[in-house]
Amino acid sequence: MTDDTTPDLPPEIVEMLGRPNPAVIGTVRRDGAPVTVATWYVYRDGRILVNMDAERRRLDHIRHDPRVSITVLDGEDWGTHVSMQGRLTLQDDPDLEVIDMIARHYTGKPYPQRDRPRVTGVLEIEAWHGWGRFA
Amino acid sequence: MTDDTTPDLPPEIVEMLGRPNPAVIGTVRRDGAPVTVATWYVYRDGRILVNMDAERRRLDHIRHDPRVSITVLDGEDWGTHVSMQGRLTLQDDPDLEVIDMIARHYTGKPYPQRDRPRVTGVLEIEAWHGWGRFA
Repeated sequence: MTDDTTPDLPPEIVEMLGRPNPAVIGTVRRDGAPVTVATWYVYRDGRILVNMDAERRRLDHIRHDPRVSITVLDGEDWGTHVSMQGRLTLQDDPDLEVIDMIARHYTGKPYPQRDRPRVTGVLEIEAWHGWGRFA
Repeated sequence: MTDDTTPDLPPEIVEMLGRPNPAVIGTVRRDGAPVTVATWYVYRDGRILVNMDAERRRLDHIRHDPRVSITVLDGEDWGTHVSMQGRLTLQDDPDLEVIDMIARHYTGKPYPQRDRPRVTGVLEIEAWHGWGRFA
């Protein structure tokens, strides 16, 4: 296990994060219980971006407690994975610019559903751990 | 999205859970922040079993708050995934029986590290959601 107290990710982890990997985000409900769900993400300039339907209950959880944790699995070898913790800042995505960028990253196409508002979450990485190839 | 208030999982989800899929478990730290990490698991008789090194900090989190969430990704198509919430009961694994069973499920071999105590977590599924093929 690699455990670093600084948020600076080494190049091999940045390289892995740049690919369209499976990932899971964990938030906490109002009652303090954890909730996990699979998510798309992109890594940009030291931050992780995710994007959600504006009606997702998860957004209420995040507004109440912005602390989240994301685990990204290497899509080619999921024995290698990195988990990152930090606070998520929410931003509207009025032109679906961010979800289109993320959808293109995973599918090569813009996001198909155009009639529902979306919200972007920007994760400032405060801590991270790597396993597998990164250990 | 399939959302059921009962913990009875339909047969197609039970079938998927029976395979050695990637999974991520979410716990909460003492300060209430969520922590996620990739994990092996097995599904047995309506429960999810995981197993940890007895020195893992995660065990302290779980002893303080046994509420956890696990997201299992379909290893063949990770657009399909199921997330389950519940409470984790901890049990010592003195003969490494459970970790060997889980390691064989994923690797075909017993767990290689024999000199460190392990602890099993048994998840009673209280709620679940399915996406993708299960929606």
